[in-house]
Amino acid sequence: MKGRVVIVGAGPGDPELITLKGLKALKGADVIVYDRLVSPELLREARPGCELIYAGKAPGRHTLTQDEINRLLVEKALEGKTVVRLKGGDPYLYGRGEEECMYVAQHGIECVVIPGVTSAIAVPAYAGIPVTNRGLASTVAIATGMEAREKKRRAVDYAKLAEATDTLVILMGVSRLEEIVEEVRRVRGSEEPVAIIVNGTTEEQRVVVGTLGDIVEKARRARVKPPAVIVVGKTVTLREKLWRLS
Amino acid sequence: MKGRVVIVGAGPGDPELITLKGLKALKGADVIVYDRLVSPELLREARPGCELIYAGKAPGRHTLTQDEINRLLVEKALEGKTVVRLKGGDPYLYGRGEEECMYVAQHGIECVVIPGVTSAIAVPAYAGIPVTNRGLASTVAIATGMEAREKKRRAVDYAKLAEATDTLVILMGVSRLEEIVEEVRRVRGSEEPVAIIVNGTTEEQRVVVGTLGDIVEKARRARVKPPAVIVVGKTVTLREKLWRLS
Repeated sequence: MKGRVVIVGAGPGDPELITLKGLKALKGADVIVYDRLVSPELLREARPGCELIYAGKAPGRHTLTQDEINRLLVEKALEGKTVVRLKGGDPYLYGRGEEECMYVAQHGIECVVIPGVTSAIAVPAYAGIPVTNRGLASTVAIATGMEAREKKRRAVDYAKLAEATDTLVILMGVSRLEEIVEEVRRVRGSEEPVAIIVNGTTEEQRVVVGTLGDIVEKARRARVKPPAVIVVGKTVTLREKLWRLS
Repeated sequence: MKGRVVIVGAGPGDPELITLKGLKALKGADVIVYDRLVSPELLREARPGCELIYAGKAPGRHTLTQDEINRLLVEKALEGKTVVRLKGGDPYLYGRGEEECMYVAQHGIECVVIPGVTSAIAVPAYAGIPVTNRGLASTVAIATGMEAREKKRRAVDYAKLAEATDTLVILMGVSRLEEIVEEVRRVRGSEEPVAIIVNGTTEEQRVVVGTLGDIVEKARRARVKPPAVIVVGKTVTLREKLWRLS
């Protein structure tokens, strides 16, 4: 009897932002393979006897490679177990959920995907920033700051994105903040509003607000560190009028 | 005693894709003001005595204007009630949640926002299409097809978006499909993969897959109607290898 794999998006941080469907899967799991940014509170929902496996990836701590994770999912499913692969945010937006799902499916194992609330929209929301607004922003582009690390050519042209869309959301971009801001500034100018939200939707949420002209310095002073979401665009200013966590 | 307003994203259609936090708010509501695309199953979660108010917007059926909705939220909250404003998808991505939240807050009423799973990512996911993938798509742009109706100038330049990003997701674009496809085709060419997902994540989900060269004709033959999500880009081809609902 083969088991199955369920790839679940845990949402952006607030444990209550998991979906009902994701929570049900979690409660029915024999094995949960979870990432670093998944809330510990969610793991408490696992049933007694459920095997919890940490997959990574914290600096300086042993973590599994993507190949090891793939093989682990298949191995546990072949033992007849229901395996939940729990990921921060949404599994199909920079989550590699599709890589894992393809690998599992290629081994003849059933693999279901349960989307999650994405950090790209919910983290700004908890900071009082809508990604769209009539009059201020009709389109959104989402990019990652990590892409360049794995490729020889630069895959993301931030200036081009900034030119084509209204709101620009960058995930995992804090370590390359200066470079990204410089590129976007050439198109949008120094006065364009920016926010950096650190530990978004959690009790540790912190927000640094500025412009493309001063955000690098402000982020430096605030000692901004990952995980963080960067939002560029006019809707950042709505923060003054909207509900926000911090 | 003033009440409060909670703006809740119901998710893309599958009622189990609501968040735990959203469901809790729903169960605690004195009044629920809901949109057309919200699953009837979610309304069954309301407690006995909860007042359910339909806000719209179905063709040919009486619905409330945005001003009427805004005033209704304030009026009910001023009666001391906990009002849940339940919206399809995510309230801050073309959901006007921020407009309602600002209006409510301006009247001195507490207003909290609970993000939802967005159709822009989850609907493609249920059709076996990830919006990003290493090697195929590093960036996503999200646009709406409805924008032009309300403005004199065209706010969305689809060709520019198609040029700047890898995956292009268009919500509410089916009624302008031909025009949008024509614009995107000039940049991406006729062979670029496209999918149109109708009634995504529900039991009525249907997927039409094609290229920018043949999708208009295919959509016509399949009598594609709203609600639908359009996805343009290479990741559409991964559908053959991934879990999907239909």
